[in-house]
Amino acid sequence: MIKPLGDRVLVEPIAKEETTASGIVLPDTAKEKPQEGKVIAVGKGAYKDGVLVAPEVKVGDRVLFSKYAGTEIKYEGKDYLIMRESDIHAIFE
Amino acid sequence: MIKPLGDRVLVEPIAKEETTASGIVLPDTAKEKPQEGKVIAVGKGAYKDGVLVAPEVKVGDRVLFSKYAGTEIKYEGKDYLIMRESDIHAIFE
Amino acid sequence: MIKPLGDRVLVEPIAKEETTASGIVLPDTAKEKPQEGKVIAVGKGAYKDGVLVAPEVKVGDRVLFSKYAGTEIKYEGKDYLIMRESDIHAIFE
Amino acid sequence: MIKPLGDRVLVEPIAKEETTASGIVLPDTAKEKPQEGKVIAVGKGAYKDGVLVAPEVKVGDRVLFSKYAGTEIKYEGKDYLIMRESDIHAIFE
Amino acid sequence: MIKPLGDRVLVEPIAKEETTASGIVLPDTAKEKPQEGKVIAVGKGAYKDGVLVAPEVKVGDRVLFSKYAGTEIKYEGKDYLIMRESDIHAIFE
Amino acid sequence: MIKPLGDRVLVEPIAKEETTASGIVLPDTAKEKPQEGKVIAVGKGAYKDGVLVAPEVKVGDRVLFSKYAGTEIKYEGKDYLIMRESDIHAIFE
Amino acid sequence: MIKPLGDRVLVEPIAKEETTASGIVLPDTAKEKPQEGKVIAVGKGAYKDGVLVAPEVKVGDRVLFSKYAGTEIKYEGKDYLIMRESDIHAIFE
Repeated sequence: MIKPLGDRVLVEPIAKEETTASGIVLPDTAKEKPQEGKVIAVGKGAYKDGVLVAPEVKVGDRVLFSKYAGTEIKYEGKDYLIMRESDIHAIFE
Repeated sequence: MIKPLGDRVLVEPIAKEETTASGIVLPDTAKEKPQEGKVIAVGKGAYKDGVLVAPEVKVGDRVLFSKYAGTEIKYEGKDYLIMRESDIHAIFE
Repeated sequence: MIKPLGDRVLVEPIAKEETTASGIVLPDTAKEKPQEGKVIAVGKGAYKDGVLVAPEVKVGDRVLFSKYAGTEIKYEGKDYLIMRESDIHAIFE
Repeated sequence: MIKPLGDRVLVEPIAKEETTASGIVLPDTAKEKPQEGKVIAVGKGAYKDGVLVAPEVKVGDRVLFSKYAGTEIKYEGKDYLIMRESDIHAIFE
Repeated sequence: MIKPLGDRVLVEPIAKEETTASGIVLPDTAKEKPQEGKVIAVGKGAYKDGVLVAPEVKVGDRVLFSKYAGTEIKYEGKDYLIMRESDIHAIFE
Repeated sequence: MIKPLGDRVLVEPIAKEETTASGIVLPDTAKEKPQEGKVIAVGKGAYKDGVLVAPEVKVGDRVLFSKYAGTEIKYEGKDYLIMRESDIHAIFE
Repeated sequence: MIKPLGDRVLVEPIAKEETTASGIVLPDTAKEKPQEGKVIAVGKGAYKDGVLVAPEVKVGDRVLFSKYAGTEIKYEGKDYLIMRESDIHAIFE
């Protein structure tokens, strides 16, 4: 298993076809386009000003993140992204 | 539903025609022009210096924000912006 | 009414003719030239290092601010500026 | 009267002739050359890390400041500078 | 023995052949590609906002780190990297 | 007398001949070369994270400082430098 | 004697021949190559977020530091470097 460090989150990106299926369509503009994914693993959080701030996202959450966020890894044949939680904009509930 | 993370806010931008109707007209200068919108969802706030600072804006608020702020998403056929609360200048009351 | 967020202040700029009348004349140098205005609305302040710092300026104050500070808005036919309180140099008493 | 905000100080610069009289002569090098002035008004100080730090300078102090510091204003026919206290290097006692 | 200072970690990088063997395959994209290694020594941690934050990684952990992170050293014939813990993305468990 | 503000220090630089006499010879490399001087006056210190940190140097100390540090002033016919204490590397004891 | 200020450390660099003798060989890559040295004197530490953080290194420690770190001085005929402790990667024990 992969355990992200600090405020990092392991995310499995969802392919564009699925994205359309879930109702999210990325608009055709010059702005940064976020991408959808599923949270696979979450770090314990990071210290901010002397306080350990626990992550808001949890395993299984469907999240919206900056398209160019994170670092790609391939693990047991699947593609993942490791990113900081601050790269995640929102959760779909 | 979309739940913004941290100090992020989900805003539905109001088209320019509506903007005129509500009394706001953007002046013709070289300065940055703010835009009007409606708050749809609000994060729980962010930690600043060890204190969780709750957002000042709430769902339903009509807000003025930086024109180039935030990230565009299309959700269930509608266009939204996810931005940090610090990109919001003021509330119309 | 417009309610500025955080440490923002809504200022009605005073035209140059008035500026002369109140005794302020901007010198002809290459330095940044401040501008005079009247405070119309004030945010509740901002958190600095865990402390909510209330604004020093209050509604009605005549203030001196950086000429290029803030964001222009037109509201009910009048021009205003929304700026951070840190863009205000001084109050005329 | 002009009341500087935060850690700002209102200074009346002293002309070069006076500077010579008080014993300060600026050397002819490529380094930044400070300038002398008199403190006319002082803000209440600024919050640093949760503590309101009162200014060290007081009205009447003769101070040495960075030549290019501050913002020029003309008030009731006289030239002043509004600068942050951190632009002031030293007091002449 | 080498004792890293502060929040630094001594890592023995694992060659690419091993990387494949453990199931990690780096994808062929333009994104930054992380690298795998084994933790050999760990500093005592660093002070963040007045709190000594102990490292999350421990000796023997198999870690994923930024490819260009750290400083190379050769010690008793072996190649190591000294990097800050923040350059480590995740632990394999 | 000149009283430096905050964490500033007034230093009388020692000419290169004296420098040689005291045993310090600056090497001929491309690195920044420090300079020697004598502390003439010291500010009360600066607030760092809510704590007033008193200066380590005191009047009379012989110090080593960055060659390009500080601001030159001429006072009663003598050349001095006003610099921040952080520009001082070491004291000769 | 030279007493470094704050979090500075006085280091006597060890020539490359000695480096080889102690088992450290710097690899031939484009990465930054650290250098070995001996700690001669240590400052009292620096305030970080209101806490005086004492240095981890002590006099006599053999340390590994960034090759381009610090300021060169020649004292009583010997070459030294004054650097911040954060430029030191590790101690050899």
